[in-house]
Amino acid sequence: MARIVVKFGGTSVAGIPQIENAAAKVAAEIARGHQVAVVVSAMSGVTNQLIEYCREISPLHDAREYDAVVASGENVTSGLMALALQKRGIQARSWQGWQIPILCSDVHGKARILEIDGTEIARRMDNDNEVAVIAGFQGVTSRQRVTTLGRGGSDTTAVALAAALQAERCDIYTDVNGVYTADPRIVQHARKLKKISYEEMYELASSGSKVLMTRSVEMAMKMNVPVQVLSTFEEPIGSDYPGTLVTRDEDIVEQEVVNGVAHSKDEAKVTLVKVPDIPGIAAGVFGPLAEANINVDMIVQNVSQDGKTDMTFTVSKAELQRAMQVLKNEPRLAGIEIRFDEDVAKISVVGIGMKSHAGVAQTMFTALAERGINIQVISTSEIKISVLIAAEYTELAVRALHAAYGLEGDRKLA
Amino acid sequence: MARIVVKFGGTSVAGIPQIENAAAKVAAEIARGHQVAVVVSAMSGVTNQLIEYCREISPLHDAREYDAVVASGENVTSGLMALALQKRGIQARSWQGWQIPILCSDVHGKARILEIDGTEIARRMDNDNEVAVIAGFQGVTSRQRVTTLGRGGSDTTAVALAAALQAERCDIYTDVNGVYTADPRIVQHARKLKKISYEEMYELASSGSKVLMTRSVEMAMKMNVPVQVLSTFEEPIGSDYPGTLVTRDEDIVEQEVVNGVAHSKDEAKVTLVKVPDIPGIAAGVFGPLAEANINVDMIVQNVSQDGKTDMTFTVSKAELQRAMQVLKNEPRLAGIEIRFDEDVAKISVVGIGMKSHAGVAQTMFTALAERGINIQVISTSEIKISVLIAAEYTELAVRALHAAYGLEGDRKLA
Repeated sequence: MARIVVKFGGTSVAGIPQIENAAAKVAAEIARGHQVAVVVSAMSGVTNQLIEYCREISPLHDAREYDAVVASGENVTSGLMALALQKRGIQARSWQGWQIPILCSDVHGKARILEIDGTEIARRMDNDNEVAVIAGFQGVTSRQRVTTLGRGGSDTTAVALAAALQAERCDIYTDVNGVYTADPRIVQHARKLKKISYEEMYELASSGSKVLMTRSVEMAMKMNVPVQVLSTFEEPIGSDYPGTLVTRDEDIVEQEVVNGVAHSKDEAKVTLVKVPDIPGIAAGVFGPLAEANINVDMIVQNVSQDGKTDMTFTVSKAELQRAMQVLKNEPRLAGIEIRFDEDVAKISVVGIGMKSHAGVAQTMFTALAERGINIQVISTSEIKISVLIAAEYTELAVRALHAAYGLEGDRKLA
Repeated sequence: MARIVVKFGGTSVAGIPQIENAAAKVAAEIARGHQVAVVVSAMSGVTNQLIEYCREISPLHDAREYDAVVASGENVTSGLMALALQKRGIQARSWQGWQIPILCSDVHGKARILEIDGTEIARRMDNDNEVAVIAGFQGVTSRQRVTTLGRGGSDTTAVALAAALQAERCDIYTDVNGVYTADPRIVQHARKLKKISYEEMYELASSGSKVLMTRSVEMAMKMNVPVQVLSTFEEPIGSDYPGTLVTRDEDIVEQEVVNGVAHSKDEAKVTLVKVPDIPGIAAGVFGPLAEANINVDMIVQNVSQDGKTDMTFTVSKAELQRAMQVLKNEPRLAGIEIRFDEDVAKISVVGIGMKSHAGVAQTMFTALAERGINIQVISTSEIKISVLIAAEYTELAVRALHAAYGLEGDRKLA
């Protein structure tokens, strides 16, 4: 008997038949003798609709009200999931973020979980065999306002809950059956990984892989919670881990140089043209952005000519408008031309074996050059290399790199 | 300067344009120097969809989970209304039931408001000119579970809030411009009432008039909160009270014998056939129904023959299935045939002048008899007479009674 947390994404709870199907999976885990807590997303499409409502009223809205609005989708699915479990004779109740509580920072719209009090949920698991169904994506601030964790935040709820409940595993049920070496919709021969390290998964997630939210992987790594990604719509076929297990790198025998190619079209490039090459300019750019809670990803600054230089960086497209406003209002940047380009894609290769291998970057640059793909910006970490290219080359670049690093597996069975 | 509570129903917040329109009405009240608190329903159609989800999973569901699900529609509109007000430069914030808190009884699905702590909302009105936007229809129990007040419950939220804030008036914005002598869709010459007493409005509401929820009128009467019913979609035309004002009967100069004809197709008739006419049978019927929180409306028992009698009563169609189950499981009723009929309508005439006039019932019975309409059940109160008839005669009966009591006004302007 183990205690596990299972999380169902939006497509897994898209309607009543899907919720019933998900409830059946929970029932199967209980039949195996496990204690289960369930985390649910909103029905697919609902959160987008709610965000759209907020934007229709005002593109620059009070994030506290935005949170109150968009968190409601998970209230619906947590209640419905509890009903679907009860129908199967399983004692269950729903929990909204404020009821547990899931205490969060007050950075509305992308709050961080500070603390989850799992005492009552654990007590009910032990004493009453009660299944807790938790509304994902949401929490409450110390001021008793509802907050949300940013897109994909239900993954983070699930991992944080698994840590709070000292669960053995966190199963993320989604519409794909695991983590692939590249997006199978782009690379036909992409291979499903049986295991992947936290570090690699973290880099893939922050590079555009939509399978897990970056923050959830970071938390899983910190809390050492094994996370399994698996499909709601496939039956397990005898294997203990039918999906991909995200775990410590010590638990992975064979470490590949490159384990995956990720791409992202969610970033926009911002260029400050002919910036005076004097101290304080970088602070004038990145200070105000940080204060406005806007994440900056890739940064590049060319060698200066005539005491002037171009400074380029990327931000999330969703935050581009806000970023431009912040920069235009910054007195230290007065008179400086600021351009942006949304027509870019970030392509990344990730692998823990990179640490001990040379020439990984060279392989990437050669493969792209051979296809005539120009690299606009480069950024690297210990186990990742990312490049920014024109968006139209995205698929070509992903396929070229997947082949260049020999990631092909057997043809994926439909 | 006055403090007022304004409430917008589902059609008044059906989409972003409607919410913007409603926000403009609030802004107009503020421009007049009033302090305003706003109560909102869910977007029209949303609550029905959420109820349908619950029913799809199970017709007999845990009311606590049902409440968690269906209360979410108001979370959306309260946040959106706050955003729409902020856009107009008005300081505003949304409040969910648990945040205020609106403390309710734990009869889930149709809870009663026990207490509203209006201190913080009033403080912010006075100190910060902040407009509170309250999610209607919902509250929280002492066990910190979300609960709802039953259909139309946002009216009750608004009236209770007006009482808690010691507001001068509660304006209920809806899709009709007041209370009519009969449903204008049935009676072309129905007349809009400028004023109506709490007592009459209460009887009309409990007899099928959908303009206000019964419970809200009861509360307005008890708390002495003047309630104005008016249209969101019409502009006021110079009058202080463009709609209908529901107030104390002392404030109404001319008291009509009959002020309105109401009809309801929401009730079903239940008949227990050949019940032994012995003590304890009525308790065996109505005790278990009361315990299950099922309201029984009209009750009639014929004079017994051969020590047996038929007993007939009505319950809400929504609760019929549950009522039948309760009765079938009741040992004291074992072996008794229980029939039900959903094909019935309740027609009621209401007027405070009835207290001092004779012959009011006779006029009703004659008017119906002249059209060949059979009366199945009769029930009366001090200011109301209701009859149960076959549903197909509904419109005919309403028109006949409206004419019989001389309620015609000028042809309603579209």
